[in-house]
Amino acid sequence: MQAARLTPSVGRQLLRLGNGSSRPSTLSRRPGPCPARRPYASGATQAVLDKSDPLFSESSRREIQANAESKSFAVGMFKGQLTTDQVFPYPSVLNEEQTQFLKELVGPVSRFFEEVNDSAKNDMMEQVDETTIQGLKELGAFGLQVPSELGGVGLCNTQYARLVEIVGMHDLGVGIILGAHQSIGFKGILLFGTKAQREKYLPKLASGETIAAFCLTEPSSGSDAASIRSSAVPSPCGKYYTLNGSKIWISNGGMADIFTVFAKTPVTDAATGATKEKITAFVVERSFGGVTHGPPEKKMGIKASNTAEVYFDGVRVPSENVLGEVGGGFKVAMHILNNGRFGMAAALAGTMKAIIAKAVDHAANRIQFGEKIHNFGLIQEKLARMAMLQYVTESMAYMVSANMDQGCTDFQLEAAISKIFGSEAAWKVTDECIQIMGGMGFMKEPGVERVLRDVRIFRIFEGTNDILRLFVALQGCKDKGKELSGLGNALKNPLENAGLLLGEASKQLRRRAGLGSGLSLSGIIHPELSRSGKLAVQALEQFATTVEAKLIKYKKEIINEQFVLQRLADSAIDLYAMVVVLSRASRSLSEGHLTAQHEKMLCDSWCIEAAARIRENMAALQSDPQQQELFRNFKGISKALVEQGGVVTSNPLGF
Amino acid sequence: MQAARLTPSVGRQLLRLGNGSSRPSTLSRRPGPCPARRPYASGATQAVLDKSDPLFSESSRREIQANAESKSFAVGMFKGQLTTDQVFPYPSVLNEEQTQFLKELVGPVSRFFEEVNDSAKNDMMEQVDETTIQGLKELGAFGLQVPSELGGVGLCNTQYARLVEIVGMHDLGVGIILGAHQSIGFKGILLFGTKAQREKYLPKLASGETIAAFCLTEPSSGSDAASIRSSAVPSPCGKYYTLNGSKIWISNGGMADIFTVFAKTPVTDAATGATKEKITAFVVERSFGGVTHGPPEKKMGIKASNTAEVYFDGVRVPSENVLGEVGGGFKVAMHILNNGRFGMAAALAGTMKAIIAKAVDHAANRIQFGEKIHNFGLIQEKLARMAMLQYVTESMAYMVSANMDQGCTDFQLEAAISKIFGSEAAWKVTDECIQIMGGMGFMKEPGVERVLRDVRIFRIFEGTNDILRLFVALQGCKDKGKELSGLGNALKNPLENAGLLLGEASKQLRRRAGLGSGLSLSGIIHPELSRSGKLAVQALEQFATTVEAKLIKYKKEIINEQFVLQRLADSAIDLYAMVVVLSRASRSLSEGHLTAQHEKMLCDSWCIEAAARIRENMAALQSDPQQQELFRNFKGISKALVEQGGVVTSNPLGF
Repeated sequence: MQAARLTPSVGRQLLRLGNGSSRPSTLSRRPGPCPARRPYASGATQAVLDKSDPLFSESSRREIQANAESKSFAVGMFKGQLTTDQVFPYPSVLNEEQTQFLKELVGPVSRFFEEVNDSAKNDMMEQVDETTIQGLKELGAFGLQVPSELGGVGLCNTQYARLVEIVGMHDLGVGIILGAHQSIGFKGILLFGTKAQREKYLPKLASGETIAAFCLTEPSSGSDAASIRSSAVPSPCGKYYTLNGSKIWISNGGMADIFTVFAKTPVTDAATGATKEKITAFVVERSFGGVTHGPPEKKMGIKASNTAEVYFDGVRVPSENVLGEVGGGFKVAMHILNNGRFGMAAALAGTMKAIIAKAVDHAANRIQFGEKIHNFGLIQEKLARMAMLQYVTESMAYMVSANMDQGCTDFQLEAAISKIFGSEAAWKVTDECIQIMGGMGFMKEPGVERVLRDVRIFRIFEGTNDILRLFVALQGCKDKGKELSGLGNALKNPLENAGLLLGEASKQLRRRAGLGSGLSLSGIIHPELSRSGKLAVQALEQFATTVEAKLIKYKKEIINEQFVLQRLADSAIDLYAMVVVLSRASRSLSEGHLTAQHEKMLCDSWCIEAAARIRENMAALQSDPQQQELFRNFKGISKALVEQGGVVTSNPLGF
Repeated sequence: MQAARLTPSVGRQLLRLGNGSSRPSTLSRRPGPCPARRPYASGATQAVLDKSDPLFSESSRREIQANAESKSFAVGMFKGQLTTDQVFPYPSVLNEEQTQFLKELVGPVSRFFEEVNDSAKNDMMEQVDETTIQGLKELGAFGLQVPSELGGVGLCNTQYARLVEIVGMHDLGVGIILGAHQSIGFKGILLFGTKAQREKYLPKLASGETIAAFCLTEPSSGSDAASIRSSAVPSPCGKYYTLNGSKIWISNGGMADIFTVFAKTPVTDAATGATKEKITAFVVERSFGGVTHGPPEKKMGIKASNTAEVYFDGVRVPSENVLGEVGGGFKVAMHILNNGRFGMAAALAGTMKAIIAKAVDHAANRIQFGEKIHNFGLIQEKLARMAMLQYVTESMAYMVSANMDQGCTDFQLEAAISKIFGSEAAWKVTDECIQIMGGMGFMKEPGVERVLRDVRIFRIFEGTNDILRLFVALQGCKDKGKELSGLGNALKNPLENAGLLLGEASKQLRRRAGLGSGLSLSGIIHPELSRSGKLAVQALEQFATTVEAKLIKYKKEIINEQFVLQRLADSAIDLYAMVVVLSRASRSLSEGHLTAQHEKMLCDSWCIEAAARIRENMAALQSDPQQQELFRNFKGISKALVEQGGVVTSNPLGF
């Protein structure tokens, strides 16, 4: 059997998704450095960290960041490092004023969704009626993160997360309208806009007078975002670009006035004079002319939201509407998406909360076999797993939003993990709710089937979970790979690099001998969680050992090993989830929250199972010859299916 | 934390689901005994088995069956026995005439669904138009298993499986109309009807002039079928019963003329004179008067089919319309459901075939990152897993239908496994197809989202997969439990039972010492599959050892250990799936099928992964103290959720 030829280009493209350090949101009201503390131990480093100047300029911070080790836990775990700075203690970023302001918003927004919005009707009518949209505008829901001086509510990411959690609890279709507008539609103007662009567009966008949409995907360009064909040709006079192309599956595409559009533009290298096609981002107004759209797409779910193809036909876009740098559009797109991912996890944490309440209500009242069904182990296990998935997702969402609000610049892996985890968790939780409800769950009336239809798209859009898994694994391996090639150099000059080699060698020897890395979460997590903490550290060691072994084996060719990468990503997700709940449950235990013991159960249960999965998956990846056979079989079976155009075998009757 | 009180009644009720040996379908044209052969070895027992008289009367066969060891592989595996009779070699039950007849049907039925039926339109209109229904009637689709002398097509179960596979490929909504009609609606008349009942009802039902429905579920009685409240009170004259009650979620409920209705009737014990309420089955005509129905339910999927509440208000049902014995209705219901389950697996094997073709078509044509996406490992693994799930489901469906056609009476566990496996496989396969198709998969146009909505109900209806898992585990444990209590008796009289004890003790000792049971599939499976065969035998040993340990630990209280039962059921399903594909792939290899090597890949891959799952799950169940902690946590978390009415924890912000 011939092995399929794999192009290295997927891997390379995916590595561009991270694209260096992220520019922190300009919205952050507390752009201080990431704190790092050992609350359960005296920490010597704490004093140093606390000295960081909160007014530390962004550019100098970025420079230091680039030279320093990453502060990202997820990046560190690929290298066998326990980088606790961003994850411990569980961050609380809102000051009193922000908390108060948010509390005042939570009530009205909740009431609006309970009393005014009708999610079942929105789904049935396949649109949201005008009075509801108007009400949302009056609430400020179209400009939650736009600074108040530009007419918005001026929320930081954490505040935004809390409000979209409410939206997610009630109506994901409405959530898409709002998210497509501000989380991606005009987020580029917020993150990269010039003063003039911001002042021109944001006030009307914030009030909802104009609606925004994000135009990246094209018929032949989905996961491979860099392959778009839309083009924007600069005029000879340099005053405008002529934009041509079409974009598909654009949320708000049929109702938007302002579009963030990505198109290829010719970019000339100043040094060489050579011209290359590079992606540039533009702010395009429907009023420019030449912008049209197709009919609303008929979809499985999120029917309340409009999805349409958008056509740009000879649209004249003024040069001042370039967003970010000419040729820097891919980076703009990735930053917008990276910055919005926590919002999906937050919304879906809310969705799960609502769904779990429905499942519990049924289980607590339905009697079969003479018992309330929540007394049966099968139902108990379902409910407990649902609660665990919700707890992890919520913990991730607020961890990432807090990290962003703290001014952390390295959160791309974590944001991607939160999107993957949240979308899969919401799918499982909603599906299990239907199973608990039985026939009733399949009926339209309780509204759970609608949520299942709605959540299906979250595993696909804004980066499919498959592509994001590759991104997580590759981006993580990239840093580790640098370290290994550094080691390679050191090996060439062993005398000069004795220290590096000795340190590294002893770490590797300890790990390989199964002696452990000497890493510990002791003093960082609450003592009641120490067993789970040890599981996390062991899992991290197993994970990092496997990453290293695979990188030594495949070197740069790791980018073509998708069977391996997917398994590394799965374990990376499990590991980050462990650390996030260890952090949150530690805080609850140390602060004596009423739910602390419940959170300990959620955390311990998660850690027991995640650690077992990581142990098994990494062991199989490291040493199981049957796994290699499986990978060969997957390739072979798939190849035969493609050749046959479907299932290869006849049925057992032979015809 | 207080442990939830568990009633033993679930377990006891579930054990009634099996209810002794099944009466084989009277439709079977080859009611010979189950063959058992070792095609790859000289088998001494073969000659004996082959001597069985094909005219062997049914009652005498049932008697022997009851005294003999079960021939069911699934029953045997709980006892650590390798009962190969029903599973090896993969059965081929159709004679030449039956094959020819079936071939003549496959073409027209396929063409009808390709050219006449419009599944997208049926879904949108939430009904099937009259010309399509008429066409199906003309095809004979409403009476596939009704004997030809009563106006039906006279198909055996295997032939029926082949045709519903085609229906499943094209339109599960139509499949529900046909299945509700004949697989359950009037199946009772076929299985238990008197001559008069059969002659009165079957001809019009077979032609589709009258439509049937199966009325078991009630508002307060779903999984707990024995708890129905509908009542049928006999008239003083004994000539009729007065039926009152309502039934919910009745497929075809709004259009049926003939209903198989289950109701409580007073049954007097001839010996004691005591009267007890017992369930009796009735054939009820809408024309009796007092039968009405509610509006069509709004559902997530299978929208083409009608689902409605049916009300029986003082309906006078003639005594001659009792189906089966008075008071024997629970058995009638369970037999109908047991007899119909293979049909679901067959239909869903067809569904998966169609869905895999769509996924392959997309993967073979979609280009991203400069490559057809089927060249990427992530996609290859998805396609390969989809093919494996389809192969297992199809192999199970035709194995069970063939066993039934062979006159095997002990297939309830296998039928339940095929329903669980098929419905979960179809769900995963369709979901993955959407993921492979990305945004396109979420759109209505390609029709995959419709299938996902349709297949969701298969995990719920005709026995939820949760209840069926408990049934599989408990029924399997029941037989093993008898053996253990037999051993207990033997221990009281060790001298008289030395042989039994020694045989059993050495078996147990060998198993416990990890020496293996001496069981082998060598000579039974094709030599090329010997490694996978060994994996299956090891898995069976691990499984049986765990079953035994759990039965010794919990004894009769095992019926309350749902965490344990669920895990036993999962492994039982994995194990039966291994054996079924080993059998089918062996046949293909030995007969030199063109796809034999492909089937070997599917079989080996399945066996590698299933064996690993069984190994891990059984090891955890046997000796992992963390698993006990997990079970306690599940109970505790669930209890807290129920007390709180939903998620217990506040979000990380505390409000």
